[in-house]
Amino acid sequence: MRVGIAGCGLIGGSLALALRGAHDVRAFDPAGTGDIAGTARLEDLLAADIVVVATPLRQVVPTLRALAAYANGVTLMDVGSVKHEVAAFAASAPATARIIGGHPMAGATERGFAAARADLFQGRPFFLVPTARADERAMGLAGELARAAGAVPTVVSAQEHDRIVAILSGLPLAVARALARVGADVADLAGPGFRDATRLAQTSPELAEAILRGNAAEVRAALVKLRAALDEVERELG
Amino acid sequence: MRVGIAGCGLIGGSLALALRGAHDVRAFDPAGTGDIAGTARLEDLLAADIVVVATPLRQVVPTLRALAAYANGVTLMDVGSVKHEVAAFAASAPATARIIGGHPMAGATERGFAAARADLFQGRPFFLVPTARADERAMGLAGELARAAGAVPTVVSAQEHDRIVAILSGLPLAVARALARVGADVADLAGPGFRDATRLAQTSPELAEAILRGNAAEVRAALVKLRAALDEVERELG
Repeated sequence: MRVGIAGCGLIGGSLALALRGAHDVRAFDPAGTGDIAGTARLEDLLAADIVVVATPLRQVVPTLRALAAYANGVTLMDVGSVKHEVAAFAASAPATARIIGGHPMAGATERGFAAARADLFQGRPFFLVPTARADERAMGLAGELARAAGAVPTVVSAQEHDRIVAILSGLPLAVARALARVGADVADLAGPGFRDATRLAQTSPELAEAILRGNAAEVRAALVKLRAALDEVERELG
Repeated sequence: MRVGIAGCGLIGGSLALALRGAHDVRAFDPAGTGDIAGTARLEDLLAADIVVVATPLRQVVPTLRALAAYANGVTLMDVGSVKHEVAAFAASAPATARIIGGHPMAGATERGFAAARADLFQGRPFFLVPTARADERAMGLAGELARAAGAVPTVVSAQEHDRIVAILSGLPLAVARALARVGADVADLAGPGFRDATRLAQTSPELAEAILRGNAAEVRAALVKLRAALDEVERELG
């Protein structure tokens, strides 16, 4: 499989490290691609079977748009943490474009290629989201890539994806921020429980923005459920 | 220092392991004291300078009461996670009793002597709570014991202690339970963030009961602050 990777940070870099042993991997990143073979221009990545867009979330749709104009049937897959904008873009993309939403449920509070690891996706769920520009061949390539990275592909709709990650990523982050604020004046006395519970509050501002503001409607819906669950826990205090 | 330890579980066992190299340590536990020197009866522990009550929370005051009747100036210190009941008991204890509240901010989700470690308290805060039956000598012994276990003694009032641990222990546990319930149907898709954020939901029912119901008033007050912080985080969603 020939794989192009746009954006060589934690996720793109880890994909490159996981795949390069058995696949032809090239990456593009203006900030450098570490020891991953790089291309001079973004569009050079299109000499591939599949191009993974692993930029920060706000650059995902612009990058997909730039690639889709010249993609000629090459499968494009983003790996951002929210899918409604990708689905909306795909619906209006050129008819020849092949676009899949992807999202490996793996990460770290550290950022960038320096934090990338070949085993980051090992055994982790990897969401695959069909769009209006998906077909069986493109879904097959995306699934093959996810498995080649060690992950377990799981197909969900864009709406279901955003609902699930609002619960699994948005809610823990929102709660960690709230806990960290309430405990700010006593945090130096904290044990491992409080430290683990607030670890996500260290998430980089850029990723936190994507996970929270980028998925605001679903995060709000998840917060409604969390408040109800907190009320239940409080009732159990007796 | 001659140290008696009533209850040889995670905390009592770890104290025994931390202290026995340099101090004379004996423990009592009907369930066994592992390879820690044991006594036949609870009151045999009183042949010591200080006796640590490291039972489950609901047995702390009954155990202090049983010991205080015969303590004759031996310092008694509990290491439970809540202090208002210990403070209330001390106020009505025999005038000769010497009672300090203690609480090392260390723990693990595993329980019992099998999970005990000599380094559990290393560098951790160790709250010392004076009571109506505290004096300088008793506080000095308690501080010496905390330092000997590798911990950092911090003196606070019973009320301040319970307020702080409601934030540092009660709130993260309540939130982990609420998160685990909201995410129950999608938890198999979770990444490390959600798993860390819900780890405390695995706390043993007995300890969870002590941390939440045993400190219900302060946990309620902390939940009020948490809800306000969550509202703030939600407003920042834009």
